[in-house]
Amino acid sequence: MSRRTEKLPSETSITREPFPASQKIYVQGSRQDVQVAMREISLSDTHVHGTENWLPNQPVTVYDTSGPYTDPDANIDVRQGLASLRAPWIAERGDTEQLPEISSAYGRERLYDPELAALRFQHFRQPLRAKSGANVTQLHYARKGVITPEMEYIAIRENQCLDRVQEPGKQHPGQNFGANTPKGLITPEFVRSEVAAGRAIIPANINHPEAEPMIIGRNFLVKINANIGNSAVSSSIEEEVEKAVWACRWGADTIMDLSTGKNIHETREWIIRNSPVPIGTVPIYQALEKVNGKAEELTWAIYRDTLIEQAEQGVDYFTIHAGVLLRYIPLTASRVTGIVSRGGSILAKWCLAHHKENFLYTHFEEICEIMKAYDVSFSLGDGLRPGSLADANDRAQFAELETLGELTKIAWKHDVQTMIEGPGHVPMQLIKENMDKQLETCGEAPFYTLGPLTTDIAPGYDHITSGIGAAMIGWFGTAMLCYVTPKEHLGLPNKKDVKDGVITYKIAAHAADLAKGHPGAYVRDNALSKARFEFRWQDQFNLSLDPDTAREFHDETLPADGAKVAHFCSMCGPHFCSMKITQDVRDYAAAQGLEEEAALAEGMEEKAREFVEKGTEIYL
Amino acid sequence: MSRRTEKLPSETSITREPFPASQKIYVQGSRQDVQVAMREISLSDTHVHGTENWLPNQPVTVYDTSGPYTDPDANIDVRQGLASLRAPWIAERGDTEQLPEISSAYGRERLYDPELAALRFQHFRQPLRAKSGANVTQLHYARKGVITPEMEYIAIRENQCLDRVQEPGKQHPGQNFGANTPKGLITPEFVRSEVAAGRAIIPANINHPEAEPMIIGRNFLVKINANIGNSAVSSSIEEEVEKAVWACRWGADTIMDLSTGKNIHETREWIIRNSPVPIGTVPIYQALEKVNGKAEELTWAIYRDTLIEQAEQGVDYFTIHAGVLLRYIPLTASRVTGIVSRGGSILAKWCLAHHKENFLYTHFEEICEIMKAYDVSFSLGDGLRPGSLADANDRAQFAELETLGELTKIAWKHDVQTMIEGPGHVPMQLIKENMDKQLETCGEAPFYTLGPLTTDIAPGYDHITSGIGAAMIGWFGTAMLCYVTPKEHLGLPNKKDVKDGVITYKIAAHAADLAKGHPGAYVRDNALSKARFEFRWQDQFNLSLDPDTAREFHDETLPADGAKVAHFCSMCGPHFCSMKITQDVRDYAAAQGLEEEAALAEGMEEKAREFVEKGTEIYL
Repeated sequence: MSRRTEKLPSETSITREPFPASQKIYVQGSRQDVQVAMREISLSDTHVHGTENWLPNQPVTVYDTSGPYTDPDANIDVRQGLASLRAPWIAERGDTEQLPEISSAYGRERLYDPELAALRFQHFRQPLRAKSGANVTQLHYARKGVITPEMEYIAIRENQCLDRVQEPGKQHPGQNFGANTPKGLITPEFVRSEVAAGRAIIPANINHPEAEPMIIGRNFLVKINANIGNSAVSSSIEEEVEKAVWACRWGADTIMDLSTGKNIHETREWIIRNSPVPIGTVPIYQALEKVNGKAEELTWAIYRDTLIEQAEQGVDYFTIHAGVLLRYIPLTASRVTGIVSRGGSILAKWCLAHHKENFLYTHFEEICEIMKAYDVSFSLGDGLRPGSLADANDRAQFAELETLGELTKIAWKHDVQTMIEGPGHVPMQLIKENMDKQLETCGEAPFYTLGPLTTDIAPGYDHITSGIGAAMIGWFGTAMLCYVTPKEHLGLPNKKDVKDGVITYKIAAHAADLAKGHPGAYVRDNALSKARFEFRWQDQFNLSLDPDTAREFHDETLPADGAKVAHFCSMCGPHFCSMKITQDVRDYAAAQGLEEEAALAEGMEEKAREFVEKGTEIYL
Repeated sequence: MSRRTEKLPSETSITREPFPASQKIYVQGSRQDVQVAMREISLSDTHVHGTENWLPNQPVTVYDTSGPYTDPDANIDVRQGLASLRAPWIAERGDTEQLPEISSAYGRERLYDPELAALRFQHFRQPLRAKSGANVTQLHYARKGVITPEMEYIAIRENQCLDRVQEPGKQHPGQNFGANTPKGLITPEFVRSEVAAGRAIIPANINHPEAEPMIIGRNFLVKINANIGNSAVSSSIEEEVEKAVWACRWGADTIMDLSTGKNIHETREWIIRNSPVPIGTVPIYQALEKVNGKAEELTWAIYRDTLIEQAEQGVDYFTIHAGVLLRYIPLTASRVTGIVSRGGSILAKWCLAHHKENFLYTHFEEICEIMKAYDVSFSLGDGLRPGSLADANDRAQFAELETLGELTKIAWKHDVQTMIEGPGHVPMQLIKENMDKQLETCGEAPFYTLGPLTTDIAPGYDHITSGIGAAMIGWFGTAMLCYVTPKEHLGLPNKKDVKDGVITYKIAAHAADLAKGHPGAYVRDNALSKARFEFRWQDQFNLSLDPDTAREFHDETLPADGAKVAHFCSMCGPHFCSMKITQDVRDYAAAQGLEEEAALAEGMEEKAREFVEKGTEIYL
């Protein structure tokens, strides 16, 4: 595809439909400009069986990553980008300065290239950078005891299910949500303390003020990331921006732009300006493009310029494979699948070609200096992660993890926020070891894992092979789960694949929140189960992660509108509906005055004793 | 749908295509007529990089549930049914007799109803029954020390991955596969001993000689079940038979026919006669149809006739909800989702209507007498299983489980094979408790669970919410996993849903086999990973659980035939392919004589020390 024919985003290429029966609400914090976006799902009333009475059901408020796109009142122009939510907060801290021009030589080249005019994002904003000597990371503020508006926003956001709903009818057993979690609501001070301890990060580049603040840490809701990005073989800017909006719609908490094809710089600008969630990248991909794919020609100078280029565009976290050390590379030679991380293999090739140590490792402190000038968070890459079950938890993988632990300490010395990437392909019985080792080795820095895939034999279904591992490792303490789509190992994901991946990972993350005993996680499950039991079909659809698919599947066999108020479904038909029969059981129990469970059980047992005494024959 | 327009199966309605690059092989046992069907997948050769040499890859043999349908040499006529594989084994035991006519009054009524002639399976066979005083169960033989041909067949079948492949290159850590498992191959004697101990069952009705013997027990491969069956709202005999064949094709180890609609008797006959796997049913569904859906009109006489009707057709296991006791029913009154098992709710309604104890409980010993006359296995139903996370592991559920434990002992007294059904909806942190309690309460009888679903909020994706729980509980010791399709809670599954459910559950079961450390489970994963790493695309597709989907997904972005031999894929393009780069790494390592890993690591560390001494500046 030539530059001139690159398709650009427009109103019609972006999904803007609100969710059914939902309204966007904004919960105000301690200041007027902290307006935390949530989605409130309205529910219909419950018919009190055998009466003409109806009881209201409280609406359910859910965590919402979809940004302004699902707010019909929001005025959105993809050529302008989203509103700069955080701009006043950044400005009032007084520790940044607007640069007269882009610092990156490559960035300037792209900016002034007339051939790129047609595809360039037009509403370019001059980048910000920390004033000389200043450190603008959320970790730096947290350690100084400052609660930023970002932290307050996050506290309100994480409580979405808790402070607006009634107590659920039942208590649920479950593990503690975390020794350091307050039993009730998340407070802004708790957010600050978790960031200060390095247990959580707030990816929030000062050049991405459009993003709604969110937090990644194991004492908060488990988050998910969706990878998008073009490749040399396919895709356009239009498609990638829509994929980003689409992924956020279905629940992606962050987006990684992994483009390796044409116009990476411009594609990224379009994505960031229109993204309500933090954006991550792997800068080495673009650096490699700059040397025409020849890993051995990579230099620190080119890589450094790429970091600055992307930091000034607003990338919120960088995957940096600084743990792929020269001496670890031979440990992969006898693996079944060698090195499968693209970043890892690029650096391995570079190291071997020059017989020198990984330049990301040797320049790590200089990288920290760049990161803290823009508040870009580290996602320390696992370049030697296993690409098959056979290679799981091997020496190469754990050797690199040790190095990532050392690098975490260096990053923290600079107050640079840091998370750690994890595998990969891991059979179930080896998953927990990964989590435990990561916490121990990396000082409890948040873990960010790809899957892991629990078997290698199902290409085409790797969202599922990995969703199993993701749910488990999320329960064990992973803070963010990087999705895997059905196309993994086979091709570039299209929109359907992105949605399948995101929904699968929302399931995994939510299952983990439930298992961890997150105080608010059960609210949505209980509301949906109650709706299901009461045949409130529309409520069941509307409360689900994907109302469209739930409704469509239902309508395949019972399409009539009447069926959606029917007290049965096509699985069993009217006579066999167990839920209908249970209602009869309840009615019977109520009619007999059997509500009192204890008295009831006792009465029944008496009957049972009678029955045993009289023998079974009398009964039929 | 009227009886006359019922669509019947034909050659064209049954999927018969062989799997790609696969051939059906038959491994002979100690006697000529023990011919164990397996599928052998041929692989292409590996190109030795930098040479013109090729190394062969051993074919991979996989467990095959697809029956003769995937054997192009098999002559199949759905109107005749499959060949009676087990007929000589049953006959030579000399403990059965052929009945002059069907014992069930209802069965005879259907047989002689001229209106049903058009839809009846024509090649009707007179049923067998144990001779008076005889017990024809595999458990009975096992306890007498007899190794049946069924047991030998199973031992050969379970070893499919082990005795025909080379040792994999690497050993894998993993739990022991089971304290009672021989470390090497499964022997016929081991099969016998597990059955004798009640730890495993072989569902093998003497009237279903068409089925290929298989075993359900936690010291064997984890099995999966697929539910099919019509409802009052939709489906035909033609569709249901194809669904059964289709489910077996993708890996279903057993099929449950849960029909609740029209012509249940005839539908079942068609399914059983054409099924290469054991068939399970829930007889109370049909019994209820006989009383027009009025639970309170059910009687032991009607139910008993239904058991005999189905036993003489060849149903291999019956779900029997004998644990739903009168005194437990009130325990469900305050649940979020009451009683969700259809069988459970029917019996609860009956109990309350009559204020009498569950007639399946009071007649349990009589049921055992029927079961052992045909070798029908019990699947003791969990009628009070939780229908939502909120109700998981509650008093009602565990009270019923205690009763199932008592009933297991009674069944074993009669030498009737028994497994126990389990939930349902369970958050991850409560799954293990289910498994542990079941083993303890039910004397290690095999556990057979539905999912469990780990969250309630994803209707349309419940194959995934439950696949997570299924993989975990399979690892913990569940012997068979009952699939859940994407349509669960929404409608009747169609063919696509059946396939999605089966593949998801094959993933869960296989992930469990891997985690349990099954000696042969890694063979297929390692072969596929090796093929992936060597860009043997066709081998990767052919080794996968669903070659069609893998191939189709790949071809979406790189459809050219050339792409399937390309050393890259559309995800990364030619420059960025990490696997290609790793090959370069290996070549480099080989060129430098760096094969010796230990020496290598040492040499590298020396370089690293040099590097640290000289400082980083010299490097770029």
